[in-house]
Amino acid sequence: MTDHTPTDSLAPSRRTLSGLEYFRAMADGTLTPPAMVSVLGLTIAEVEEGRIVFTGTATEQFYNGLGVAHGGFAATLLDSALGCAINTTQPAGRVFTTLELKINYTRPLTREVGELRCEGRVIHVGSRTATAEARIVDARGKIYAHATTTCIVV
Amino acid sequence: MTDHTPTDSLAPSRRTLSGLEYFRAMADGTLTPPAMVSVLGLTIAEVEEGRIVFTGTATEQFYNGLGVAHGGFAATLLDSALGCAINTTQPAGRVFTTLELKINYTRPLTREVGELRCEGRVIHVGSRTATAEARIVDARGKIYAHATTTCIVV
Amino acid sequence: MTDHTPTDSLAPSRRTLSGLEYFRAMADGTLTPPAMVSVLGLTIAEVEEGRIVFTGTATEQFYNGLGVAHGGFAATLLDSALGCAINTTQPAGRVFTTLELKINYTRPLTREVGELRCEGRVIHVGSRTATAEARIVDARGKIYAHATTTCIVV
Amino acid sequence: MTDHTPTDSLAPSRRTLSGLEYFRAMADGTLTPPAMVSVLGLTIAEVEEGRIVFTGTATEQFYNGLGVAHGGFAATLLDSALGCAINTTQPAGRVFTTLELKINYTRPLTREVGELRCEGRVIHVGSRTATAEARIVDARGKIYAHATTTCIVV
Repeated sequence: MTDHTPTDSLAPSRRTLSGLEYFRAMADGTLTPPAMVSVLGLTIAEVEEGRIVFTGTATEQFYNGLGVAHGGFAATLLDSALGCAINTTQPAGRVFTTLELKINYTRPLTREVGELRCEGRVIHVGSRTATAEARIVDARGKIYAHATTTCIVV
Repeated sequence: MTDHTPTDSLAPSRRTLSGLEYFRAMADGTLTPPAMVSVLGLTIAEVEEGRIVFTGTATEQFYNGLGVAHGGFAATLLDSALGCAINTTQPAGRVFTTLELKINYTRPLTREVGELRCEGRVIHVGSRTATAEARIVDARGKIYAHATTTCIVV
Repeated sequence: MTDHTPTDSLAPSRRTLSGLEYFRAMADGTLTPPAMVSVLGLTIAEVEEGRIVFTGTATEQFYNGLGVAHGGFAATLLDSALGCAINTTQPAGRVFTTLELKINYTRPLTREVGELRCEGRVIHVGSRTATAEARIVDARGKIYAHATTTCIVV
Repeated sequence: MTDHTPTDSLAPSRRTLSGLEYFRAMADGTLTPPAMVSVLGLTIAEVEEGRIVFTGTATEQFYNGLGVAHGGFAATLLDSALGCAINTTQPAGRVFTTLELKINYTRPLTREVGELRCEGRVIHVGSRTATAEARIVDARGKIYAHATTTCIVV
């Protein structure tokens, strides 16, 4: 977030697509996902208004020095789901960006946990700010991390 | 954090090196940095007891869909500085891991901002938990993001 | 939270009652609520394992200088619901206390909003730490604030 | 924070006084402090641009069921210092209100700790949002709780 967003900060596609259309196009492969999402190997699995699911795996390239995934891996997954969940509610040309993010780590993530689901859901959407929540779970629904965010309209 | 940390979660070097020795060895190249730190191109620039400085650059491979760095980039940089600052105060064989992380994003990060410094400093170190704060600044000291954490002994 | 909790910090009743029994006794009037809960006029309306509902009203004595309830009013209501939700899961003699609390304020609270419900629900309970979430809503379910916490065993 | 602040939410004095003048008038007794600040017995001890110090004591009327101050007591003290620190930087008629608040509790607060100082300091002030940090310390500088906030212009 900021008070001086670059004038080219809005992806061209988002000027003509609503948030929901934009993430659906990304989920079905019509649009390329953002660079950072690709670096961490994350994928959009489900998307509807106010809710999105990313998937990913905590492979060893994302480990810290303790033999488990770096906190930044879960943070990136959670921030993606939170920001996108909010943006699914927005029309073409209107975008929210992250103002703050709070993460709780409840269990260590390793590649043995397998494919992770991170579901983001909107809590409150106002005209200037919005909040959302997200959780990272494994195939059995066990929670590894959860987070909340405040986003602000660009 | 967790209640069931893998038994091999402590890097072998940290069984014989204090946190301060461990990060100094990483700063001078004797020890290889963790995988995730390398993925994001982060480097340890300074380290002393209770304080560490990481550097990095928000290049385009870490961008989100808005033409600025993904929130996960700053989150990874901040979590690294916070956790390591706390661990510089710990003896060999004793390690703290992140329990929660709260980030404030104050300005957008792009590659044009140039090399970033992220200084982490300890606030409170107890026998079971510890807290720290960190800020991401540019060469002129302008703040782009700041964070606090709680870590817990493994 | 702390590393040196006063030895008399556990309410005598909680040495013989489980958390669930303790809050039920408070809800039915057998036990007197804590001082701070009385200062803010809060009441326990519902309690079950892992979930508790407090009620309260943002009357003018809790206002800040802007003609709405001080952020501390919602913070106290949320912290009560969060901590108690976690403690409803604990046996006699075992108590969790707040390590960190993160609050999102989504709408201003005034006495005109009427009676507020604040429901706290457990997210994760481990052997050393636990997390929970809570929301403050009005009679129609409109959200005024929400929060998450990490608690640690005393 | 909100998208529909009551039209009478700005204290009349703040329409003609800058934030700095307003809190100085409160510190010297010319203006009455807000209701909630009085309920908790808090006082403004120092104020300058971007920085304010509140004092208070964790007396038994603010205790929870564990024989220590309720988390809401520190939350109110911290929120006061954070919000006011930001507002000391604002001109007459321009007010920021709390959007989110994150608190770390590092030691239990009791009346035996004596008079507490809570210093709030601005980190970032933009045109729409601002961030600040605060700490609660005793007479010897020992830290009992610390916090950060995001405020938004009303």
